[in-house]
Amino acid sequence: MSSPSSLDALIEALRCLPGVGPKSAQRMAYHLLQRDQRGAARLAGALGHALEVLRHCTRCNSFCEDEVCARCANPRRDQGLLCVVEMPADLAMLEQTHSYHGLYYVLMGRLSPLDGVGPRELGLEKLLARAADGRVQEVILATNFTNEGEATAHMISELLQPRGIRVSRIARGIPVGGELEHTDTGTIAQALVERRPV
Amino acid sequence: MSSPSSLDALIEALRCLPGVGPKSAQRMAYHLLQRDQRGAARLAGALGHALEVLRHCTRCNSFCEDEVCARCANPRRDQGLLCVVEMPADLAMLEQTHSYHGLYYVLMGRLSPLDGVGPRELGLEKLLARAADGRVQEVILATNFTNEGEATAHMISELLQPRGIRVSRIARGIPVGGELEHTDTGTIAQALVERRPV
Repeated sequence: MSSPSSLDALIEALRCLPGVGPKSAQRMAYHLLQRDQRGAARLAGALGHALEVLRHCTRCNSFCEDEVCARCANPRRDQGLLCVVEMPADLAMLEQTHSYHGLYYVLMGRLSPLDGVGPRELGLEKLLARAADGRVQEVILATNFTNEGEATAHMISELLQPRGIRVSRIARGIPVGGELEHTDTGTIAQALVERRPV
Repeated sequence: MSSPSSLDALIEALRCLPGVGPKSAQRMAYHLLQRDQRGAARLAGALGHALEVLRHCTRCNSFCEDEVCARCANPRRDQGLLCVVEMPADLAMLEQTHSYHGLYYVLMGRLSPLDGVGPRELGLEKLLARAADGRVQEVILATNFTNEGEATAHMISELLQPRGIRVSRIARGIPVGGELEHTDTGTIAQALVERRPV
């Protein structure tokens, strides 16, 4: 007497999306079936295709359809710089600045002991092997300035420094265009501590 | 040099979900590919299957895998009562009360002139035909008490009353367990107007 099983299965399957609970999953299912069947078919196809063809670049660990992604294969990028980010979205933001021409390593996550993500789950050995290719001169840590991102950066630097690899961290401070009045005190305090001679 | 095309296609396809913008679509895609490939495969399958087998019950218009859903086919339900709701989720809520034993008609939406949903788009003729089957004695309007739901209820009652079908609207008032102090003034005003003798 309740909903058809294929509808229930769809609602249940939609709950694998992050941040989607029972109510939104239901709303999404109705929307797809009632208002956007073409979009739904496209989504089913795109999901299947992505699962089939996407893998991780063996050099930067980001998503890629080949063994090595176009960015890592580009000889004009500075092979001596390796920038470590948490997610492909972070890489995309850095690329948008057009101010970095080295290579990347994408962790695909961050240390998060509460979620059971330790150094092993994060695959840090893979990063260590990548950084020890003999060409990398400096590893730039560009994980987020959250607790987890900071802990991740700290752990990586502890692992890399004994191997004689130079490690740096992107700067923290007042955002460009930022006004002190509207900046949180933690950021202002850091900006004071990390002040630079002019 | 940007993301692989199959990833871009997936992110774009996820945006057909209601309330999902570019940032959440990206987050969802990374999550599915990185953390929940099994869930992603299940979602692709469930979507494809639902699109293939689900259709609308010819009597109540809700989602159904057969021509007539089990609820409409149940002879023990009161064939003289037809309750009109906006969405299958509303039907499910009414069923959960265990206090209604008639049949339903699911509009699969509501009048919404701003979104281009008029009486024709909502398929109100189908409801009129259903209500004129000769067995329905009373149509109970259980659309939401939003502006659009109210307008929908008004329009349906205007269409049904000339045909000699009894039309009622579910009651509006203070929620059960509700305290006046925490109830909005509009609801209190309505509860006053619609007061009943005790």
